[in-house]
Amino acid sequence: MKPDFDKGNGLLPVIVQEWETGEVLMLAYTDEQAWEKSLDTGEAHFYSRSRKSIWHKGGTSGHVQRIREIRIDCDYDTILFMVEQVGGAACHKGYKSCFYTRVEKDGRFLEHAEKVFDPKEVYNK
Amino acid sequence: MKPDFDKGNGLLPVIVQEWETGEVLMLAYTDEQAWEKSLDTGEAHFYSRSRKSIWHKGGTSGHVQRIREIRIDCDYDTILFMVEQVGGAACHKGYKSCFYTRVEKDGRFLEHAEKVFDPKEVYNK
Repeated sequence: MKPDFDKGNGLLPVIVQEWETGEVLMLAYTDEQAWEKSLDTGEAHFYSRSRKSIWHKGGTSGHVQRIREIRIDCDYDTILFMVEQVGGAACHKGYKSCFYTRVEKDGRFLEHAEKVFDPKEVYNK
Repeated sequence: MKPDFDKGNGLLPVIVQEWETGEVLMLAYTDEQAWEKSLDTGEAHFYSRSRKSIWHKGGTSGHVQRIREIRIDCDYDTILFMVEQVGGAACHKGYKSCFYTRVEKDGRFLEHAEKVFDPKEVYNK
């Protein structure tokens, strides 16, 4: 059995959740090659839609995601990685989770998290 | 501010997480109209890619999702609904979560959850 890569034109969404706390960290996409790499290495690999290439999460920052459990949904077209987030931050903007913005009832966006690291220091070395 | 509906050809993924436990229940898609309906009513509305129409989650089964908090990611192209799941089951196959299948290290798929309801009884009334 395999994820249904035909469905998303070869790309399926992957929800990344912190294993210990259940906090949702990010969403990314995987193709078949990145999926195989994630299974083989036990570290999250994705497909970058902007760079059009396989992407080893944390390859630059060191903030890799060690996969503790993988789930797939009832239609086999969405994947859930439950991970241990090395470095404590999944978001390239320096936050633990990419979902640091809350949407208020009136539709306003409100940022409400503290940065874990300074992206300039991590990526411009 | 608004979600970036230009990015996903008008459709953005919505992760649905149980407010109380942090369990990821499902992933669905929203367009701008479903987004507005979710904000206005406080109940999850999605866009069904197969039926090509707005879909009030739980409209048939009664298993609506009361939105307790909405988050959006750093790129404004993925949404997170934290919900109270009425009826205790989000999956149309009768499971609490759509992610009832675990992927083993060798790639095998293993179902490992108990059904909360019998879909035949709920949908064929």
